[in-house]
Amino acid sequence: MQQLPATTFWVLRLLPRNVRSLATSSGNQRVEACHQHHEACGYFLLIQTRWQDNDQYGRGNSAVYYSYLDTMINPYPMRYCGLKTGLLMSPMVGFIVTNQCTFHSPVGFPQIAVAVLVMEKVGHSSVHYRLALFTAKPTKEPPSVDLRHLGDGFFFGHPKLAQFAALACTTGSSVHVFVNPAISKPVGLPEDFRRGFLWLMSPAPV
Amino acid sequence: MQQLPATTFWVLRLLPRNVRSLATSSGNQRVEACHQHHEACGYFLLIQTRWQDNDQYGRGNSAVYYSYLDTMINPYPMRYCGLKTGLLMSPMVGFIVTNQCTFHSPVGFPQIAVAVLVMEKVGHSSVHYRLALFTAKPTKEPPSVDLRHLGDGFFFGHPKLAQFAALACTTGSSVHVFVNPAISKPVGLPEDFRRGFLWLMSPAPV
Amino acid sequence: MQQLPATTFWVLRLLPRNVRSLATSSGNQRVEACHQHHEACGYFLLIQTRWQDNDQYGRGNSAVYYSYLDTMINPYPMRYCGLKTGLLMSPMVGFIVTNQCTFHSPVGFPQIAVAVLVMEKVGHSSVHYRLALFTAKPTKEPPSVDLRHLGDGFFFGHPKLAQFAALACTTGSSVHVFVNPAISKPVGLPEDFRRGFLWLMSPAPV
Amino acid sequence: MQQLPATTFWVLRLLPRNVRSLATSSGNQRVEACHQHHEACGYFLLIQTRWQDNDQYGRGNSAVYYSYLDTMINPYPMRYCGLKTGLLMSPMVGFIVTNQCTFHSPVGFPQIAVAVLVMEKVGHSSVHYRLALFTAKPTKEPPSVDLRHLGDGFFFGHPKLAQFAALACTTGSSVHVFVNPAISKPVGLPEDFRRGFLWLMSPAPV
Repeated sequence: MQQLPATTFWVLRLLPRNVRSLATSSGNQRVEACHQHHEACGYFLLIQTRWQDNDQYGRGNSAVYYSYLDTMINPYPMRYCGLKTGLLMSPMVGFIVTNQCTFHSPVGFPQIAVAVLVMEKVGHSSVHYRLALFTAKPTKEPPSVDLRHLGDGFFFGHPKLAQFAALACTTGSSVHVFVNPAISKPVGLPEDFRRGFLWLMSPAPV
Repeated sequence: MQQLPATTFWVLRLLPRNVRSLATSSGNQRVEACHQHHEACGYFLLIQTRWQDNDQYGRGNSAVYYSYLDTMINPYPMRYCGLKTGLLMSPMVGFIVTNQCTFHSPVGFPQIAVAVLVMEKVGHSSVHYRLALFTAKPTKEPPSVDLRHLGDGFFFGHPKLAQFAALACTTGSSVHVFVNPAISKPVGLPEDFRRGFLWLMSPAPV
Repeated sequence: MQQLPATTFWVLRLLPRNVRSLATSSGNQRVEACHQHHEACGYFLLIQTRWQDNDQYGRGNSAVYYSYLDTMINPYPMRYCGLKTGLLMSPMVGFIVTNQCTFHSPVGFPQIAVAVLVMEKVGHSSVHYRLALFTAKPTKEPPSVDLRHLGDGFFFGHPKLAQFAALACTTGSSVHVFVNPAISKPVGLPEDFRRGFLWLMSPAPV
Repeated sequence: MQQLPATTFWVLRLLPRNVRSLATSSGNQRVEACHQHHEACGYFLLIQTRWQDNDQYGRGNSAVYYSYLDTMINPYPMRYCGLKTGLLMSPMVGFIVTNQCTFHSPVGFPQIAVAVLVMEKVGHSSVHYRLALFTAKPTKEPPSVDLRHLGDGFFFGHPKLAQFAALACTTGSSVHVFVNPAISKPVGLPEDFRRGFLWLMSPAPV
């Protein structure tokens, strides 16, 4: 339906501007620059599809992609920023205020996919994410991955990414606002959140 | 989190451009013009929330809104354009290629909402929709509605709309491409589809 | 796949034993007895299906029926027993410990259904429900219903039930245990809960 | 809420009767017998939870467990019996006619679980499954698993099972009837289906 974005192009689009300009400053060094900085430029999570994800057209339903992305958005702040998601114990929760997806090619049960989360902007009380989804390449002998990759994710540059298609089947974005649940007012990001989010954004660890 | 759009403003934004310029050409006639043309400018469907719609923050989950909109997008072409959704009997099905939502205020179980579908553009093989969701006003004695309003929808100007809030809790958009499922290629909209979609777009019945 | 239970048979099975024996004590008075006691013997809620409910076989997915029943189980205690479902404000919440469904015939988008909740047993800290789902009869002119029937439900004997099929498409049961969420321990049902549940169980208002 | 079944007890309950009596014929040889026959006595699939799985009580919603089990029920016949799930290409599809779950302890996002499928009975056109769900043990260093374990599953006796709790958090059952989708009539199981299902049932490969 649309020309599929090649991974290289797409990863560059996802990269924060400072990394992107670095990466594109020299055509030949593009891939290398990208690899040099991969550690902190994307957080990946495996996504297992479910029978129920497919609608009556036999493909993943468009609303289901948002549940993949929602599942993708929480592990990073939970693990790296100290986000507590239990209402009874959390002084701050993240509400999504806007999101969007474009569907380039279908994904659905029983495929396995990987979702990537990239930080676009860290504001006072909000963060802007860019996201994409890639399906697994069909292979004879799927290599092993850590069980934690289902729950905790991994970073750009991980060798397991070679198992996934080079073309994103879905690209999207989302904005998360952090709010005090007792009064439903946005709160400024605490220092550990800001540091965790910026770390994911920066080409070299801050 | 964002300034809430007033219904008047929002309805005008949703209206196709020709209607909007008509509606805004004279400040005083705005509402009247809007009412004159209301019959064909929006297709509404009641939305019943479910216990499962609320996530652990006690609010409707963002992915669930897309399932409301998906539920909203099919009844109009099914009823007014002859869309068949069974793969075994349909020469043409609609795939969503992109969609987005902005969440102005929460909606969730056990609230009742109404969704509205407005045509933005009718292309060769695709249609662009704008959508919004309004929650029911809390009232002592909810007035009666037709059971069919759960399945078939009704049009802008219907008196039942007075039961719903003047401010949209969610606004969004979506693009539907019609495809031959056997070969997965876009197909030109048949005449009855085109006529049905244009009818919803036009200020006066075609 | 199984012989479909006729409504009369099924309603009698759903009725609490004391009502059932009353209702079956004299063959001729069966329907009358049933009608005499209908007010308090079943709580009904309209169920709107969604596009996403259908799986790739084009029918409502079996897991989705449980979300219908879950949606059905909460409104009665919320409205008639004082159940608060917000974790931050509730001293007691209901957890489902077991449930089951049998699927007699399919239901799916875009059908409208009605679910019924019948009390089977009120224990110290738990309640046993029986549930069933009926699809709407296809009609030329669907009669009107109250908007609140989407959110609040109505009782056995309501004339709107004539709009629905006489054969249940799904029958099931569920057990709800009421728990103090702070310590995750079952709590004895408060008097207003017990009274509300017994009222639904008894043939005449307690 | 209920006494938790120990794995040993539970696995024995799940085993087909001939295996169970074998396994229990000598108390001391119980575990050994179980291990000797493990290859064909259970099919396991990792289950990744999603943010959306948790309801407003912060736990996996009961309807969601059925979507886990549904996801669990299809991979075995798809991979080992030749089941085709596309309506356009399948002469035979599986419909669930009844299912049930009992919830012993909660599971929810962000936990990882493993589901197990055991055959209870292979009939003329239907199969009876027993299922259970186990959560991952919290560990410092989760061992690696094959990516295919997300999509294709593995068998009883696999060392990865040591990563999961010994107590089932959920137990359930389900009956699948195989039907010709064109005429909606049950069909006798073809020989490759029967062989595949019996293989999972029997203590030694058939």
